[in-house]
Amino acid sequence: MAKRLMFEKPLGMRDTLPFFYNQKTKAREKLTSTILSYGYSLMDTPLLEYHETVGKMSATPEQQLFKLLDQQGHTLVLRPDMTAPIARVAASQLKEAEFPLRLAYEGPVFRAQQTEGGKPAQFEQVGTELIGDHSSYGDAEVIALLVESLKQAGLDDFVITIGHIGFVKSFFHDLLGKESEIIELLLQHLYRKNYVGFREDVKMSQLPEETKQALLSILRLRGGEEVFTASKALARNQSCMQAVNELKQLYKILKQYGVDRYVHVDLNLISHMNYYTGILFEGYAPKLGALLCNGGRYDTLLPSFQLNASATGFAIHLERLLEALEVQEQEDDVRVGVIVDDDTHAEGLQRAGALRHEGYYVLLQHIDQVPDLEKFKEQLHDSIDLTVRGGGLNE
Amino acid sequence: MAKRLMFEKPLGMRDTLPFFYNQKTKAREKLTSTILSYGYSLMDTPLLEYHETVGKMSATPEQQLFKLLDQQGHTLVLRPDMTAPIARVAASQLKEAEFPLRLAYEGPVFRAQQTEGGKPAQFEQVGTELIGDHSSYGDAEVIALLVESLKQAGLDDFVITIGHIGFVKSFFHDLLGKESEIIELLLQHLYRKNYVGFREDVKMSQLPEETKQALLSILRLRGGEEVFTASKALARNQSCMQAVNELKQLYKILKQYGVDRYVHVDLNLISHMNYYTGILFEGYAPKLGALLCNGGRYDTLLPSFQLNASATGFAIHLERLLEALEVQEQEDDVRVGVIVDDDTHAEGLQRAGALRHEGYYVLLQHIDQVPDLEKFKEQLHDSIDLTVRGGGLNE
Repeated sequence: MAKRLMFEKPLGMRDTLPFFYNQKTKAREKLTSTILSYGYSLMDTPLLEYHETVGKMSATPEQQLFKLLDQQGHTLVLRPDMTAPIARVAASQLKEAEFPLRLAYEGPVFRAQQTEGGKPAQFEQVGTELIGDHSSYGDAEVIALLVESLKQAGLDDFVITIGHIGFVKSFFHDLLGKESEIIELLLQHLYRKNYVGFREDVKMSQLPEETKQALLSILRLRGGEEVFTASKALARNQSCMQAVNELKQLYKILKQYGVDRYVHVDLNLISHMNYYTGILFEGYAPKLGALLCNGGRYDTLLPSFQLNASATGFAIHLERLLEALEVQEQEDDVRVGVIVDDDTHAEGLQRAGALRHEGYYVLLQHIDQVPDLEKFKEQLHDSIDLTVRGGGLNE
Repeated sequence: MAKRLMFEKPLGMRDTLPFFYNQKTKAREKLTSTILSYGYSLMDTPLLEYHETVGKMSATPEQQLFKLLDQQGHTLVLRPDMTAPIARVAASQLKEAEFPLRLAYEGPVFRAQQTEGGKPAQFEQVGTELIGDHSSYGDAEVIALLVESLKQAGLDDFVITIGHIGFVKSFFHDLLGKESEIIELLLQHLYRKNYVGFREDVKMSQLPEETKQALLSILRLRGGEEVFTASKALARNQSCMQAVNELKQLYKILKQYGVDRYVHVDLNLISHMNYYTGILFEGYAPKLGALLCNGGRYDTLLPSFQLNASATGFAIHLERLLEALEVQEQEDDVRVGVIVDDDTHAEGLQRAGALRHEGYYVLLQHIDQVPDLEKFKEQLHDSIDLTVRGGGLNE
């Protein structure tokens, strides 16, 4: 084998060694058991999908898709998210089920990376989809379940920012006309949370001073409940007003759930350039320099699979949650070793079996295969040496 | 979206709907908890690997590999098994760990399929690797753990067939010369368990009658312990004899483990055309028309990653295990519905929370979003209707 790549992994690919694997398993289990407790059903879809269907529907930039050709000449993609595959299933195999549907998932998704040392190209999402409920109660349930899941996983310090894609878009359309070239630029700035760039481009523009002031005013629409009043004052049309009213109603229900203390309001929020159609949200943990989770309402995806239904859901980035939990390197699972030789192997089997029965993780090891017995024992919580060479019993 | 492929999945790809997902989760959990109890550590590796390293080392036929090009022009593969990736990790990140190493995994692997309606192109393996223990005790531990895992998962009726790649190969080389063209043909027949084809090709050959009889005689070397005596009588050289002695020693230790009643001996066994180097084994359940699990000793894989170590392990095909368990369509998890309207949403939250606290899976549903309330309730184990329209309480 060529030496150059021998121990290398493709760009953005990572191994999950035992300690991190165990932490991940525990966190995933906390999340999924909370999700199940809300009546959601876990399911899975294949890692490979057709580019023409799920690939395109996921609205992931082309350069982030891992693509390959199958033997029939179709382009396949490694799934970039789980929402589009679940929409495919909901609109086909589950379309006779009783709606609203509550579905959930955990598993790897893929986004090709362009540079070394950057983001992972494979990561795990744990998430939900509530399909066929277009009410604010549905939006609130999904956000409350997200909060509850993160708390159950052990995270206390986090913020869920809620917004509504309808407000900003209607505001811009009303103020600038639907065809204005500057709209795409301003949306990009908000998407990247580049408020400095937003300000600069507004100031540098040829727009009337009054329009500039109106555009800059929306940057103030971030904070607590008081944002609703300020937003209504700025609302330029019925669509803006409806967006604010939906958010207010959502906030009221989130108070019933008792999770409003985790919630910030942000009328500038744009989580995804072309996916969500109403309420949307993002979650951050202060110590994490990246998005922890996000979600929102998407009303056009299911119709594109010929199912007339609104849906909302969230996705948690599992590896980032573990980062946010700041898991300390700690003692691994307690393992006990039983060291044997030819004469004591049968006895060792009995001892190991009895200990396993008590719930211990027990490895039985023939002494001849251990290069360094002392170091071998050091990695164990405890050991029983049934060999004479090993120095007899030291329980 | 084009209608043609709208609801289709790529060849060999399957969805895992909630019922099957739950069964799979339960079976996986039984297997991994048994594996952990033997002191193995679970880990994971990426779904994509370099073709040049792990792809080639896996010894999977080229036409079964899913290949794609990354942006640096390297060929990547969707991992076709977990043994080669774990060898990569053992030989790099874990090479300073204390050997023998006990590693385990669960996750999807990929084998491209050529025809419709055939085998799955993505399936899940649960398995172990015992690295750095070249003793019969190591072989026995892996087989005993395989038996124990299957039993814990609920399978009672299965057979593990054990063999030794060294016997057949040495036998053929001694009898026919190392370069004989017929050897590859005969090995292929044994690999496919095509004993009729084996017999025919031997009879049709130009070999001396005595050689033909010797070749045919090995087909008798399948059964219980008595096979060891018959094998020794046929052993043509030291290598054959050593293979039989290793098997005898293994069988003796498997008796200590008390798992010999699950074990058949088969000196014709060839599980993989070029991978295993010593003891190998396969597991079958009578009602399953396909391989349930397999494994064996591989002594050349780790050296090809510059780690001088012998290893042995098993892999269980999880979806086939579920088939073998003949899981009946049965009641899903018990779910309780709490139906509310605007006025009773807050009360519903209290009720749902209390029930979740008691361990129930509870879905809270606003009545306005339910197209058919009666059918919606039918899918639930029980429901509490807090709306007037729903007819009041019917607990």
